[in-house]
Amino acid sequence: VAYDGTDFAGYAKQSDPHQRTVQEELEHALATALRLPAGALTTVVAGRTDAGVHATGQVVSFSLPACGIPPDTARLLRSLNALTPRDISVRAVYAVPPGFSARFDAVSREYRYRIATAATPPLFMQRYAWHLPGFGADPVCRAQLESAATSLLGEHDFSSFAVTASLAGKNPVRTLLSINFVDTQHLGEPVTEIRIVGTAFLHSMVRVIVGTLADIYAGRIAPDVLPTILAACDRNAAGQTAPACGLTLWGVNYSPFNSAPEEICE
Amino acid sequence: VAYDGTDFAGYAKQSDPHQRTVQEELEHALATALRLPAGALTTVVAGRTDAGVHATGQVVSFSLPACGIPPDTARLLRSLNALTPRDISVRAVYAVPPGFSARFDAVSREYRYRIATAATPPLFMQRYAWHLPGFGADPVCRAQLESAATSLLGEHDFSSFAVTASLAGKNPVRTLLSINFVDTQHLGEPVTEIRIVGTAFLHSMVRVIVGTLADIYAGRIAPDVLPTILAACDRNAAGQTAPACGLTLWGVNYSPFNSAPEEICE
Repeated sequence: VAYDGTDFAGYAKQSDPHQRTVQEELEHALATALRLPAGALTTVVAGRTDAGVHATGQVVSFSLPACGIPPDTARLLRSLNALTPRDISVRAVYAVPPGFSARFDAVSREYRYRIATAATPPLFMQRYAWHLPGFGADPVCRAQLESAATSLLGEHDFSSFAVTASLAGKNPVRTLLSINFVDTQHLGEPVTEIRIVGTAFLHSMVRVIVGTLADIYAGRIAPDVLPTILAACDRNAAGQTAPACGLTLWGVNYSPFNSAPEEICE
Repeated sequence: VAYDGTDFAGYAKQSDPHQRTVQEELEHALATALRLPAGALTTVVAGRTDAGVHATGQVVSFSLPACGIPPDTARLLRSLNALTPRDISVRAVYAVPPGFSARFDAVSREYRYRIATAATPPLFMQRYAWHLPGFGADPVCRAQLESAATSLLGEHDFSSFAVTASLAGKNPVRTLLSINFVDTQHLGEPVTEIRIVGTAFLHSMVRVIVGTLADIYAGRIAPDVLPTILAACDRNAAGQTAPACGLTLWGVNYSPFNSAPEEICE
């Protein structure tokens, strides 16, 4: 599932019914398409993205009531795209083995954070990038940023890079598998993408990592202190939280899907 | 100047004051920034884009009243970006020799038409691309489309590819310098860009060329009849007009600017 997060209060359903969420829109469309009573169906999501965060490769799974006829996946895909609003696009529907969970069967997630680097503010990218003029353009500074980012790779307690309230009773250890800076352009505007792959992420973890790199770029944090920030296990040790608009859940990896998606399809 | 054409009734000022145009927004911002009375200043534009058409590299020139102090171009750039709405971005301001015209000194213009080719509708690109699932994916069909496009290169009477009413008393001969198909992606969505460079263009010319190629893709027009369509000098001989949203004025070329823009700056 892809969505433009700008006008959503995040992926997850909220107790306040006035908050527009991706989950509610999706579950409503699913119940309508499958002619199920509202609330008959619960979805499981790979990555609970925050308000304003986008997705191109979100994955959502659900179980159908027992004894039903399995739906035609191609027809369900068309129905879902007809029933969801313009800022949600369902890209594919697969039938999967019983017990599959979009969340617990995921082996890794990739997030991409886009920084618009031109001197003037982005226009076509204003909903999809953070404007930091000149970010990463100077080769010496760029090398420092990349080296700082590299020190986060591997298994660490990432408490310093997460919303503290979200950590209560939770294991704060996560594994970062890769972090790369890629210079590209979208719609004619120069962008540096910070591409981060990890097994899983804490709440706001990517945005605090990027915000801390931005503080290094601005000279507010020394480029060599990331190991110290990690060791502190204290959110106050890290830098700012980068704005939601620059962040996109790029994709979720599942070993069987990746190797042979067709075999799992109906 | 870059702009998102979605919410504009085109570049050019209209007699109906309820129509929002790029020209009016720009002239209003310029008059405010330069403390000139409204209407004291007239701008000249390189390409009069239609309603819904975007620009990343539009060029606009204007003359200041005589005896004034030349403005600081860096400061004028900042003022213009503060004074224009969010869907207009002024990328650069240059002082140019007296008599320079953004329109008459242009040696060529490049337009890019974006076609979103995925099976499902584009999400992030929905304002900036036309959705034609599978366009140009089949190699045989692609070769036919590229060969058809190539037959338009050079100097021709393009009456068949223009709004007929716009041709009254006008020379309909234009020169197409290049037309290329480029497969790319923007914001994670696959796009085929048709990049067209010409000395100048008739009204809707790029959109009728692209619409005719789309009709060839759909099998409604034979791939080898473009020379016949050109020779007809009749709009009815060509195909549909592609939607405005896919079109972007990419850039305008001026020999002196291209070779040494700095030398012309203040």
